[in-house]
Amino acid sequence: MRVLSGIQPSGALHIGNYFGAIRQYIALQEHNDAYYFVADYHALTSVRDPKVLRGYVFDVIADLLALGLNPDKATVFVQSDVPETTELAWLLTTVTPMGWLEKAVSYKDKVERGLPADHGLFAYPVLQAADILLYDADVVPVGQDQKQHLEITRDIAERFNHIYGNVFRLPKPYILETVAVVPGIDGQKMSKSYQNTIDIFDDPAVITKKTKKIVTDSTPVEAPKNPATCNLFKLYSLFADPGDISEVERRYREGGIGYGEMKKRLAETISATFATARERRAEWAAHPERIAEVRAAAADRARTAARAVLDRVRNACGVG
Amino acid sequence: MRVLSGIQPSGALHIGNYFGAIRQYIALQEHNDAYYFVADYHALTSVRDPKVLRGYVFDVIADLLALGLNPDKATVFVQSDVPETTELAWLLTTVTPMGWLEKAVSYKDKVERGLPADHGLFAYPVLQAADILLYDADVVPVGQDQKQHLEITRDIAERFNHIYGNVFRLPKPYILETVAVVPGIDGQKMSKSYQNTIDIFDDPAVITKKTKKIVTDSTPVEAPKNPATCNLFKLYSLFADPGDISEVERRYREGGIGYGEMKKRLAETISATFATARERRAEWAAHPERIAEVRAAAADRARTAARAVLDRVRNACGVG
Repeated sequence: MRVLSGIQPSGALHIGNYFGAIRQYIALQEHNDAYYFVADYHALTSVRDPKVLRGYVFDVIADLLALGLNPDKATVFVQSDVPETTELAWLLTTVTPMGWLEKAVSYKDKVERGLPADHGLFAYPVLQAADILLYDADVVPVGQDQKQHLEITRDIAERFNHIYGNVFRLPKPYILETVAVVPGIDGQKMSKSYQNTIDIFDDPAVITKKTKKIVTDSTPVEAPKNPATCNLFKLYSLFADPGDISEVERRYREGGIGYGEMKKRLAETISATFATARERRAEWAAHPERIAEVRAAAADRARTAARAVLDRVRNACGVG
Repeated sequence: MRVLSGIQPSGALHIGNYFGAIRQYIALQEHNDAYYFVADYHALTSVRDPKVLRGYVFDVIADLLALGLNPDKATVFVQSDVPETTELAWLLTTVTPMGWLEKAVSYKDKVERGLPADHGLFAYPVLQAADILLYDADVVPVGQDQKQHLEITRDIAERFNHIYGNVFRLPKPYILETVAVVPGIDGQKMSKSYQNTIDIFDDPAVITKKTKKIVTDSTPVEAPKNPATCNLFKLYSLFADPGDISEVERRYREGGIGYGEMKKRLAETISATFATARERRAEWAAHPERIAEVRAAAADRARTAARAVLDRVRNACGVG
């Protein structure tokens, strides 16, 4: 089964990204033909500095490899290494009713959040449809809240098939396991835009510093506490072993564990969880030529798959 | 100087097309580096039968070569043979404000004329900008009424240059010599959509039949006539020698020339004008493999030019 997903190159990945998607991408590479692409064509709608964009793209690849995506199993490629994507986007655009794009929520959302009202944002769902359909993807992992985009992709594919015959495979959503919302250090949902993140590749010293800032109430050490409403506990239970979680939960309810101790435990657990990944990340960063090799090999594989589909599409509509 | 223009593949070319554009394209190949492309990506917004589209594309190439475009001088290529066009279109789309496309008149016009309100029509000016900017075109021949599209192209190029540095050459319009409006057989402007055309490659018998239907008033043979208001005279003066035109004009004013005679003269003159082209057209049609060779060589030349520009653009925005 071919699984396909895209990752925006937009700077450091945080632990919300890890539990919400990346951990599951890594799991999916085991029994599937996994294709993961770094969406640099999409990123151009917001990142307009070539150096910054190149840096982000390099970082995402290094991050994903360090976290456990295996280039022998998964195809981790860069969107713009397969320019066939944009040709398919044009072919799809010719059969996409304006009304479908006008209804799409992401354009309005992004403009409201202050991005320039450029056509790239508006046309985004068509490029996304091309990203997916170009690889005959069977399933696309999406969060519960991202189902609309995949529906537009399916609608476009169905309209194209209706006009030109049975050209596209219709992808199905694979709804990602919803983890409990990962709280940021201020207690809101962890998100880059709230600047409340703990990043996956933060140094242990930075992790310690950030965990110290995590917002708690002021219940004293000896008093019983409710683990369900405590940000520290929520974060801790994402990382720790079940035995440790049970023990800590008991001590919360009984009283006798202080937030200082919890912050220390949490920082240590986060640091330990990503210790191997941090080492591998440093290895990859020291060998950009190896990243380049992985990237080139993945691009070859992705282009071959893309070429076969695109030839089918071009032939169906009579171009080339 | 590089001259670039696109021609829609939409069936038989008529004599309005010839005088409005093609004759001038042929003249421009003499002292310029002329690039003319058959716009099949654009045509997809209205032609949705692959066989029909392939036929139209073949016909346009054969027509243009038969009329005198010389493949050793001009690069006559097919848009979809240079898929780099669509990649540039995406890169441009990320910097194109929605407002510019919303203001463009062609989308509204086309939807009012009954074309489906698809995103391809809306995004058309961006693909057109890519068509032009991809070849560092110096000038683009346009009719007086098509200046807006080139202005959007220039605006997009300027915005891109403003964001990413001096990447694009700004093309200038080359306003096509306006011939007097070419009347169709019903007296309205000659246009495919009015079904009032005389086609360049119509058989002499068909030309005769169509000229017989040309609308005139009912002034008798011997009465003086006003050549300026006569459709037959207008068409005749596009084709005939200055001497013959003067003679006919004199006979109009003096009286003594009948519409029957004029129709015969006109049919003969049109047939004679395109006699050589008709023969060459039959030659090309009999040798599709030669068309394929011309097309492949032109595609090579166009892609090489396109590749250089696209690499510059990709580098400027940090993809690939």
